[in-house]
Amino acid sequence: MKEFLDGFSVLYTLELIGTFVFAISGIRLAAKKEMDLFGAAVIGFVTALGGGTTRDVLLDSHPVAWIENPTYAGLVLIAVPFTYIFRRYLIYMHRTFFIFDTVGIALFTISGMQKALSLGLHPGLAMAMGVVSAVVGGVIRDILCNEIPLIFRKEIYAMACFSGAVAFYFLEASGSPTNLNYLLTVILIVGIRIIAIRKNLTFPKMK
Amino acid sequence: MKEFLDGFSVLYTLELIGTFVFAISGIRLAAKKEMDLFGAAVIGFVTALGGGTTRDVLLDSHPVAWIENPTYAGLVLIAVPFTYIFRRYLIYMHRTFFIFDTVGIALFTISGMQKALSLGLHPGLAMAMGVVSAVVGGVIRDILCNEIPLIFRKEIYAMACFSGAVAFYFLEASGSPTNLNYLLTVILIVGIRIIAIRKNLTFPKMK
Amino acid sequence: MKEFLDGFSVLYTLELIGTFVFAISGIRLAAKKEMDLFGAAVIGFVTALGGGTTRDVLLDSHPVAWIENPTYAGLVLIAVPFTYIFRRYLIYMHRTFFIFDTVGIALFTISGMQKALSLGLHPGLAMAMGVVSAVVGGVIRDILCNEIPLIFRKEIYAMACFSGAVAFYFLEASGSPTNLNYLLTVILIVGIRIIAIRKNLTFPKMK
Repeated sequence: MKEFLDGFSVLYTLELIGTFVFAISGIRLAAKKEMDLFGAAVIGFVTALGGGTTRDVLLDSHPVAWIENPTYAGLVLIAVPFTYIFRRYLIYMHRTFFIFDTVGIALFTISGMQKALSLGLHPGLAMAMGVVSAVVGGVIRDILCNEIPLIFRKEIYAMACFSGAVAFYFLEASGSPTNLNYLLTVILIVGIRIIAIRKNLTFPKMK
Repeated sequence: MKEFLDGFSVLYTLELIGTFVFAISGIRLAAKKEMDLFGAAVIGFVTALGGGTTRDVLLDSHPVAWIENPTYAGLVLIAVPFTYIFRRYLIYMHRTFFIFDTVGIALFTISGMQKALSLGLHPGLAMAMGVVSAVVGGVIRDILCNEIPLIFRKEIYAMACFSGAVAFYFLEASGSPTNLNYLLTVILIVGIRIIAIRKNLTFPKMK
Repeated sequence: MKEFLDGFSVLYTLELIGTFVFAISGIRLAAKKEMDLFGAAVIGFVTALGGGTTRDVLLDSHPVAWIENPTYAGLVLIAVPFTYIFRRYLIYMHRTFFIFDTVGIALFTISGMQKALSLGLHPGLAMAMGVVSAVVGGVIRDILCNEIPLIFRKEIYAMACFSGAVAFYFLEASGSPTNLNYLLTVILIVGIRIIAIRKNLTFPKMK
């Protein structure tokens, strides 16, 4: 139990779950766009790993995460038949997915920011890098599917990520235990996103 | 005065102005596409800093400019409310913008080429890298907004950049003072672009 | 003769041919999209060199191939007038092009995988990196032309590349001579693609 609660293991385990859920979201969009199995696997891959890859390339942090650890790519490969086999069930699991997806975003934000901080980045840029890790995968997915990225139009979740990044930074600075900070940050991000969707809150449009 | 005219300071000051103007151009397109504030900030960011980032990643010149110096990202953040507040005035400032935008392109071309040369690149590739620094931001902006990049269709300004890059290279090689070379190159690039638009010159179409 | 058959020279010569043919395919699509000469040159460039560049950036293998060796960029520059001058003939050379294009893909797969293996990558990821080298150029070309990448929709050639990568890996492991392995792999990839098109085979669609 104690070992399970160790910061690294918890974060890593949750990151793997986030990767899997992100891959499924990409594969489902690819299926909707009538792509073939190969296209679906690629879209799943970039959705799940595009954000972290962009962060690592920008930070010159090599090898990038999925090159160093083949588990990530393996999860995407498993997600393809998984999505296919459970396609009927996945449709009804909209809520479950929404939660996992948001938790995934929250975790990618935190781990992205931590990586940037550990490389000595300015805190403001590290927060931005956390958001990059969380959202760029979805942006690349939408570009490959020839759509204007959803996140620029309707979703408030980038703002949720950013709020989480700010909160996590100050929680850490306050000396509060890291595992608690993970939990609070995830709750904050999930909370903002749920409230935003319930109340139909969107970010103000320009003009 | 002398210090102000020092090559580095002048170039840096003008680069900051170019960054700000590029960010505004991205934010305005995002507003036209009905994106929200977050989307507008991101589009402003990639328009202003995407070209230099691409150059730095290709050249493995880390940290990339805006990670090393948070001023660039700060300027983009300031550009968002600035564009919003002055939106009525900006519409009537089409000409002013056009000039600043072209000067920005010219400066990005020069500074991009200088960076590439300082890293020992072949002069021809260094010129290309200057053009990359100047135009890739606009290309990413157009892709994120789901349009075929303007620069591939109508605008002659990539050619203007390239002519400027060639001119600057030979001016430098001739031993002419660097600040004069900046000035002449900027005048050349702005001049080509103005003449091209006045005379409705475009680059010949393929086929 | 012996020197010509030396692994490096053969591979390098064939890579140059592949680069040239890829550039032409990009330039032709750009012409169809009514782009100007500059746009055509850029599309030719990214089609020919985008895959290898992506591979090199992901692997942090700097300088990227076309920065280290200006021959690649030079070939793209030559391809622009070449395509323009021979445009009438190229239309009738559909078959010849198809063969060269597929050979190009095969070679890019092999050389990309070899580079990844030489950097110590996990064999599965090295195979994926071979496919990246071969297909990402075409993906960027399609995105810049505002189309959903062809490869995600109809073409089986990514699968052909991947089969070739697997075959090449095991041929090399078996101790079979490298030049023979090149030949067998190219024949395999070209064969799969031809059969797939003849029999109208496609990869199964998701859903």
